[in-house]
Amino acid sequence: MALSTRNRLRGRVTSVVKGEAAAKVSLDVGDSTMVALITRESAEELGLSEGQEVVALVKATDVMIMTEDGGLA
Amino acid sequence: MALSTRNRLRGRVTSVVKGEAAAKVSLDVGDSTMVALITRESAEELGLSEGQEVVALVKATDVMIMTEDGGLA
Amino acid sequence: MALSTRNRLRGRVTSVVKGEAAAKVSLDVGDSTMVALITRESAEELGLSEGQEVVALVKATDVMIMTEDGGLA
Amino acid sequence: MALSTRNRLRGRVTSVVKGEAAAKVSLDVGDSTMVALITRESAEELGLSEGQEVVALVKATDVMIMTEDGGLA
Amino acid sequence: MALSTRNRLRGRVTSVVKGEAAAKVSLDVGDSTMVALITRESAEELGLSEGQEVVALVKATDVMIMTEDGGLA
Amino acid sequence: MALSTRNRLRGRVTSVVKGEAAAKVSLDVGDSTMVALITRESAEELGLSEGQEVVALVKATDVMIMTEDGGLA
Repeated sequence: MALSTRNRLRGRVTSVVKGEAAAKVSLDVGDSTMVALITRESAEELGLSEGQEVVALVKATDVMIMTEDGGLA
Repeated sequence: MALSTRNRLRGRVTSVVKGEAAAKVSLDVGDSTMVALITRESAEELGLSEGQEVVALVKATDVMIMTEDGGLA
Repeated sequence: MALSTRNRLRGRVTSVVKGEAAAKVSLDVGDSTMVALITRESAEELGLSEGQEVVALVKATDVMIMTEDGGLA
Repeated sequence: MALSTRNRLRGRVTSVVKGEAAAKVSLDVGDSTMVALITRESAEELGLSEGQEVVALVKATDVMIMTEDGGLA
Repeated sequence: MALSTRNRLRGRVTSVVKGEAAAKVSLDVGDSTMVALITRESAEELGLSEGQEVVALVKATDVMIMTEDGGLA
Repeated sequence: MALSTRNRLRGRVTSVVKGEAAAKVSLDVGDSTMVALITRESAEELGLSEGQEVVALVKATDVMIMTEDGGLA
């Protein structure tokens, strides 16, 4: 299986907070922390739990770039 | 300035490919490669170039999670 | 009225699950099932309910492509 | 700091509704109302509250265009 | 027709730049400028041109919030 | 491998238009047509070509709902 999604970051689940409709999944990815807001249904079907190794996927159109050398352009 | 965007990944620009309307920016982020598809205008206003240190930002609603322990759920 | 959104899929609501802030709407679309995570406010203003015919809209920049002829590229 | 995100709209928070995982933030932006669905965590870290002045940011790939001179194209 | 998309901002097209696959549409919206990256196909089917009145639509999950009272949270 | 993305629609590629940075991929999905705007790089790595069977993936947060029983809500 091959996927058009360019961005794949390996991480480990640090917490899963479930609401009725949505779930927030926090990950350690290298030195960074990432957070995903997905459906509760997805979180449950994947059986996401603390300590689990996962991959965070992000479509290239959803990545913004920030530089640190100037005022807000 | 504080931003609601949860996901910030430090990286270094490895290439910028410009089309008429869009630009593709590739980054090294830790051990991973990331790709952003932004407007050409953004790429030019930020003056993005190879070797530059930047931060990749991703909204939590744009992060998907993949696990490796099963068929396609 | 004309809309730039390329992707329109007719479907029928199969369930609406409401949280405080978000709502998950499930749809039958042809042979597939689709799920939308929208604001609870939207779900209520549209009066979404089981059996209702709706159209699922997706911006072209939000569609990913997966092929089945290889490892994860 | 410079950000690739093209779209910045100044507004004032009119309400914050928090679920377990998600939060809905409503804004007055000029003559319009805007709504953001973010993580509850973000809403709390930013300390968002009614009356607060904020900026709504939207990536160019997330903007759709609607015209009013025809049927649904 | 009713749409779940919460955010609708009236504006006027100030430029349309077309690439092969993508098109960048710039708008004046109240005191702000907005930019949309859509398919060239959409821009052509809508017949977008300078001076045209349109509505910019943004899904609530695609709106980020920035405050100005602190370092990058 | 299991993926949090809820929405998977089987289709067949009908055209691939490549710009410098972006590529537009059109698909037949059941009775509907879908369009994806991805990076040119993705289109090339996947080797997308006319007639190919693929799956279109869409995150639940990227699906909007439209009903046909009223004015624009």
